[in-house]
Amino acid sequence: MPNQTVAVLGLGAMGSAITERLRDTGYATVVWNRTAARTAPHAAAGSRAAATAAEAVAAADTVLVVLFDDASVREHLDPLAADLKGRTVVNLTTTTPDQARATAAWAAEHGLTYLDGAIMATPDMIGTPVSRLLYSGDRAAYDGARAVLEVLGAADYEGEDAGLASLKDMALLTAMYQMFAGFMQAAAMMRTVGVPAADTAAEIRGWLGALLPHLDHFGAEIDRGDFDPARGQDVEFTRAAIGSLITAARGQGVSAVLLEPLMRQLDELSATGRGGADWISVIDQLPVK
Amino acid sequence: MPNQTVAVLGLGAMGSAITERLRDTGYATVVWNRTAARTAPHAAAGSRAAATAAEAVAAADTVLVVLFDDASVREHLDPLAADLKGRTVVNLTTTTPDQARATAAWAAEHGLTYLDGAIMATPDMIGTPVSRLLYSGDRAAYDGARAVLEVLGAADYEGEDAGLASLKDMALLTAMYQMFAGFMQAAAMMRTVGVPAADTAAEIRGWLGALLPHLDHFGAEIDRGDFDPARGQDVEFTRAAIGSLITAARGQGVSAVLLEPLMRQLDELSATGRGGADWISVIDQLPVK
Ligand SMILES: NC(=O)c1ccc[n+]([C@@H]2O[C@H](COP(=O)([O-])OP(=O)(O)OC[C@H]3O[C@@H](n4cnc5c(N)ncnc54)[C@H](OP(=O)(O)O)[C@@H]3O)[C@@H](O)[C@H]2O)c1
Ligand SMILES: NC(=O)c1ccc[n+]([C@@H]2O[C@H](COP(=O)([O-])OP(=O)(O)OC[C@H]3O[C@@H](n4cnc5c(N)ncnc54)[C@H](OP(=O)(O)O)[C@@H]3O)[C@@H](O)[C@H]2O)c1
Repeated sequence: MPNQTVAVLGLGAMGSAITERLRDTGYATVVWNRTAARTAPHAAAGSRAAATAAEAVAAADTVLVVLFDDASVREHLDPLAADLKGRTVVNLTTTTPDQARATAAWAAEHGLTYLDGAIMATPDMIGTPVSRLLYSGDRAAYDGARAVLEVLGAADYEGEDAGLASLKDMALLTAMYQMFAGFMQAAAMMRTVGVPAADTAAEIRGWLGALLPHLDHFGAEIDRGDFDPARGQDVEFTRAAIGSLITAARGQGVSAVLLEPLMRQLDELSATGRGGADWISVIDQLPVK
Repeated sequence: MPNQTVAVLGLGAMGSAITERLRDTGYATVVWNRTAARTAPHAAAGSRAAATAAEAVAAADTVLVVLFDDASVREHLDPLAADLKGRTVVNLTTTTPDQARATAAWAAEHGLTYLDGAIMATPDMIGTPVSRLLYSGDRAAYDGARAVLEVLGAADYEGEDAGLASLKDMALLTAMYQMFAGFMQAAAMMRTVGVPAADTAAEIRGWLGALLPHLDHFGAEIDRGDFDPARGQDVEFTRAAIGSLITAARGQGVSAVLLEPLMRQLDELSATGRGGADWISVIDQLPVK
């Protein structure tokens, strides 16, 4: 039986799912939420409801912060610096890497044990085999809280830089939104000839799934840095291809704005004498000079 | 034994793979290529090499056109209008939907049997179970050429509008490039903390693979057109999320240009009072007014 008490600050969809999972696995839980009414179902199910964040923290060994954003985290954690001493604070709220680093620096300044986290799951996934959370920062904090964290899902430690969990979170979300945006553009094109978006979704699901293994080739190529078009497709060919996609969209009365920035990167490579390199060299255009 | 003779115009990587497959399955093949030297290995393997496109066409029941682009197709087909009479012309060259429609109109004008195609495969896939080609335009032409076409891969007929095969091709390629661009952006972010692109590729492969089923929900939602955020995520939340991704990228010294057009669409929805709708309503921003 776990003999730790875990405080959960924030009982939105995610904080509630986390609290429920902790209860179900035998943890004593103490909960706080800005809007107090949201604690009621948890109190009824066996959690202790705290009237203030300070009260919740005082009763806990581990404090999980599941608020809306960085601003709400700092609003409620900053006044609790003294109360958090001796406890492990794990901030699961979505933040940028720099926000995570700033909160870690604040914690270090006050001698607090702080770990930053990122949740790669939706509330219904928490505690299931497909749930995964990323952590970074203080290794000892991770090791100490690991038993609790593993109850929520796979618990991957990314490294000492407190921003790493957020960075990977943001990188994965970037890839997700780009993929979803690509689907939207495709569905917008196919709708013009009466093809339902559900049909386009089924098409694209199979198609992109079959293409995913190509990412491994791209990854290896980027790491080699040679951008040899013999194994891929050069910038000029890709410019022509993307140009056709833009023309095709416009020809159907669909905006091609989503594709334009990629086209501009290819144009820039072409204009600077790099049209013969593999198009994946676009990645070298992305660091801000 | 197939008793048809198939002409292949264009012996680049794709035309060569197609010719080889036709030979391997017992078809008599006659080949033509602008640069005549490329016919030699095919002649050695049993194809008949034609000195001109007209000579190749004259010997064939079915003519497969596998040239570089629409301009090269029109350059070589236009003078052959008389020679092509009574044969089935299948244009597998990648073109935009409007180019396909224009070639179909040209063929109709000259009383030719014309089918437009799009190859959803790489040369090494031709003739394997993962090869798929799309066709659109004249249904009778498709039915007549079907036996030949199925030798190359699954042969899907998309409809009477000759632009449909190209349109689906372009829609699928759009989704592909957007997904690849998303991976590049993610790899660019992770590189800043020393994570090899190969590791990011492995991460993203699993992550996007797990997210692909979501496309079905998006598809159904787009078809319903209600954009109910209860089942998804509203525009304002998504704006905040994409805003964080942009901030995170810039914070790591990585350009966020690839994400900016999606952000602009969300900003536009927000500014016009549609911030409470599901973010997939971005699709309604895409048709050009
Ligand atoms: N839901 C997901 O699928 C998911 C997935 C991965 C990560 N996350 C992250 O998990 C965190 C929580 O998400 P959620 O889905 O639980 O969000 P939610 O359902 O919208 O709940 C937001 C929570 O934050 C609280 N809050 C907002 N502003 C506050 C403030 N200024 N001070 C104090 N509390 C404040 C809300 O309290 P009130 O009840 O008083 O409004 C509520 O408890 C977010 O950072 C989110 O990005 C969520
Ligand atoms: N390769 C793929 O993975 C793939 C996948 C799907 C679709 N496709 C499409 O298949 C078509 C052929 O691609 P490919 O991979 O075979 O390209 P490729 O290897 O670059 O070959 C291009 C072919 O087009 C010919 N050509 C170019 N310009 C010409 C002109 N003005 N007049 C006459 N012939 C001309 C070339 O002849 P020369 O030998 O004289 O230069 C060569 O035979 C393209 O439309 C491509 O988009 C290819």
